[in-house]
Amino acid sequence: MIIPGFRFAAAAAGIKKTEALDLALMVADSPAAAAGVFTRNRVKAAPVLLSRERLRRGKAQAILVNAGNANAATGAHGLKDAWETARAAGELLKIPEALVLPASTGVIGQSLPVEKIRRALPELAGRLHPGGFPEAAQAIMTTDTRPKTAWLKEKIDGREITLAGMAKGAGMIHPDLATLLVFIFTDAAAHPRILKQLLLQALPVSFNRITIDGDTSTNDTILLLAGGKAGNPLIEGAGPALAALQEMLYQVMGDLAQQVVADGEGARHIFRVEVRGAATPSEALKAARTVATSPLVKTAMAGADVNWGRIICALGYSGARFDPEKVDIAFGDYLVVKKGLGVGPAAEARAEKLIKSGSFTIAVHLHAGEAADYYDTCDFTEDYIRVNASYRS
Amino acid sequence: MIIPGFRFAAAAAGIKKTEALDLALMVADSPAAAAGVFTRNRVKAAPVLLSRERLRRGKAQAILVNAGNANAATGAHGLKDAWETARAAGELLKIPEALVLPASTGVIGQSLPVEKIRRALPELAGRLHPGGFPEAAQAIMTTDTRPKTAWLKEKIDGREITLAGMAKGAGMIHPDLATLLVFIFTDAAAHPRILKQLLLQALPVSFNRITIDGDTSTNDTILLLAGGKAGNPLIEGAGPALAALQEMLYQVMGDLAQQVVADGEGARHIFRVEVRGAATPSEALKAARTVATSPLVKTAMAGADVNWGRIICALGYSGARFDPEKVDIAFGDYLVVKKGLGVGPAAEARAEKLIKSGSFTIAVHLHAGEAADYYDTCDFTEDYIRVNASYRS
Repeated sequence: MIIPGFRFAAAAAGIKKTEALDLALMVADSPAAAAGVFTRNRVKAAPVLLSRERLRRGKAQAILVNAGNANAATGAHGLKDAWETARAAGELLKIPEALVLPASTGVIGQSLPVEKIRRALPELAGRLHPGGFPEAAQAIMTTDTRPKTAWLKEKIDGREITLAGMAKGAGMIHPDLATLLVFIFTDAAAHPRILKQLLLQALPVSFNRITIDGDTSTNDTILLLAGGKAGNPLIEGAGPALAALQEMLYQVMGDLAQQVVADGEGARHIFRVEVRGAATPSEALKAARTVATSPLVKTAMAGADVNWGRIICALGYSGARFDPEKVDIAFGDYLVVKKGLGVGPAAEARAEKLIKSGSFTIAVHLHAGEAADYYDTCDFTEDYIRVNASYRS
Repeated sequence: MIIPGFRFAAAAAGIKKTEALDLALMVADSPAAAAGVFTRNRVKAAPVLLSRERLRRGKAQAILVNAGNANAATGAHGLKDAWETARAAGELLKIPEALVLPASTGVIGQSLPVEKIRRALPELAGRLHPGGFPEAAQAIMTTDTRPKTAWLKEKIDGREITLAGMAKGAGMIHPDLATLLVFIFTDAAAHPRILKQLLLQALPVSFNRITIDGDTSTNDTILLLAGGKAGNPLIEGAGPALAALQEMLYQVMGDLAQQVVADGEGARHIFRVEVRGAATPSEALKAARTVATSPLVKTAMAGADVNWGRIICALGYSGARFDPEKVDIAFGDYLVVKKGLGVGPAAEARAEKLIKSGSFTIAVHLHAGEAADYYDTCDFTEDYIRVNASYRS
């Protein structure tokens, strides 16, 4: 997994309570075009505030990420901490500090251990290499059980273009991003304005359609850096090259979003809620999101229980308009509710088998219009509770 | 617990899979003034549709309640079933069927076992007696671990007035009522219009301020019957008698709502989220509700973890406007966040002790205005998952 023009490294700086990797550095050989999207939570972590500000210029050369501490709800002191660690990295790398973007994930409300990070930096910088991508993906994890990476190679304008991304998810995962850190790198040459546009277009078919627990984090960050080493003509407007890069980003972000749901805290089953026949697009989205976030639907799926009554109940309070006597609900191809009524135990038995396969779709037809949307989610298991009841200890 | 003019009985009709009580009959000696409020879920159970219709006349004489089957998402057939069981009860009791209100709670989407109910009715009617209130309260339970009752006696206009209520809660508990069946009886004489007004005024300080899992049920029903046997002058407008009855209803409904939260599925800790200093009343409510429904806050409380970062995070995505650097958060009297920053481990240790006491308040001050509101809720434990993953089996 080499992205020409980028190097990566990871270290165990002692920020996490275990001795796991918890610090990652991602560096471009020269200043790269860059864009980002950030949490809409009113409470924004210090690194979010700093990175968002720095990205106004559309350029970045390094990303410094720590796991184990969110540096959120840490006030002016937190901002200073984020700024100091970024500055230390810039000095070591001999690049302007304004080109270093900090990102953090972990416990909210505790001071960033700046000294630990500063001490780990020289070794981390010394270890940078083109093949360091997988270690970096591992270092940004918190309660994730596995690293999440996706990459693609495609020809654009006759040049081979690489696009690769890593993500960190697990909890506090909900629309308007998730506690989600996502870092995407490409050797394509593209204007920062184009990168921002590409990110915004890919969100509604990736990270803004997944939920684990309905909690929107303070630290959500997605960064996209385009180094330009592939030598393609600069992409700066509409055309086949833009479309091709967009398609690559859809795939990589969609793939990473799926991996985040599949590794949701305690998840045993993952499923997509597809809503069709809604009166308006926003009602389609509301209906899909309400079913996907209902604790009662999610616990039923944990027990492989085809409890469609809870699905129809969630649809009923979603705010979407529909006639309860027209609703159809299927698990995959198995219709379990037709015109608002249960089809019967044989259909439910088939649906139960499908749930037990671990990955399935709940398809709802409201018969109230033409709009459709979807949401990806996972079940709610005892392990979600266990992970989250003892997260800080 | 005698309410002059009312009789109650319970039976095990075999609707639940166990041999527990699952059918209750509540009867007034003569037609009583009556009012009700029902779920706002777009999908309404058959008994909800029928009882709502019948209450338009402001009169009722009997309530027939079954647990174990919600008779929801059962279409025209479900309506016929609700109507038939009510008619059978009316015939037995020799009262007009239009004065019989059905109510159901249990699994959604399965046909009501009408024959079982019909067979149990004669014995049930024969067992009616003034002291049957506690058995009836037991028969309406589903996953509740204990019956919920509250009663009061007060002098109004020189007459001793009794007001008593029973509730069934446990899961699918959220604003706009909850899977909540609540039946309240009084021997006061009051106009049905007054009863409806009293109910609507009591909701925002009782059942519309509690949440267990954010799911609004298809079957929520609150009924209030006033039999008039106390002999007080008919309450039909503003005045001290109305105010006194209102106060009694506040107390009984508030008490029942608290009991519902305390018996939330799997609940080990119950807590109130109080928000002050919000910019508007609706933002105060949104902020309180968002914290009270956050799975991450609720799982932290299950682990007695003073994880205030999750509280500030939930406030941040609640939609309430505030400056993160002005927020104060206290657990009871222990301030753990001042101006957006953690106060320190000593305060958190005291707050942790308070959580472990099992019942506490999280007090938030947003310093953005004058509005205040609250929400009562419980923690999210492994047992909630266990109860709900296997509810139908």
